[in-house]
Amino acid sequence: MSVHRLSEPEIAAMLAEFPGWTLRADGHAIERTFKFADFNQAFGFMTRVALYADKVDHHPEWSNVYNTVEVALTTHDAGGLSTRDAAMARAIEGYL
Amino acid sequence: MSVHRLSEPEIAAMLAEFPGWTLRADGHAIERTFKFADFNQAFGFMTRVALYADKVDHHPEWSNVYNTVEVALTTHDAGGLSTRDAAMARAIEGYL
Repeated sequence: MSVHRLSEPEIAAMLAEFPGWTLRADGHAIERTFKFADFNQAFGFMTRVALYADKVDHHPEWSNVYNTVEVALTTHDAGGLSTRDAAMARAIEGYL
Repeated sequence: MSVHRLSEPEIAAMLAEFPGWTLRADGHAIERTFKFADFNQAFGFMTRVALYADKVDHHPEWSNVYNTVEVALTTHDAGGLSTRDAAMARAIEGYL
């Protein structure tokens, strides 16, 4: 499946839709840090995202320290952001 | 529960027991990078570790990009490495 790399106006629209996310300095990813009550909540969130990610074959780059999860979304096949990242951000909002 | 911070000889013994791990530059953590066949395998590993971690209330610092998982073990209450990290490394070996 071909992947459409988002234009700057499309990226601006995506950031407007998901105000918690910020554009990485290189412009090729969006990032957000999530804080949860504890590790159980943090890893529960990661598990929900992981099930979605594997289903749609689009995976976050992420790290976890106890109750904190840092997520970066990018599309390597597009060399930047694509509609897959917007779909992933939308899914993640639903898992909070 | 008080936490015993490992001495340098104890750290050396731990690294000898777990040859895949390296000491972080500051000496306060051990680190290892794991490569799996795919995301399913990588996150399955993380889930097994997470269940153990929450049971023993000692949590890894880790990141994941597709099939790669980077793990750092340290004990904040000890200001460095403790027997909890050795137990975690031992458990992780069992989950590979």
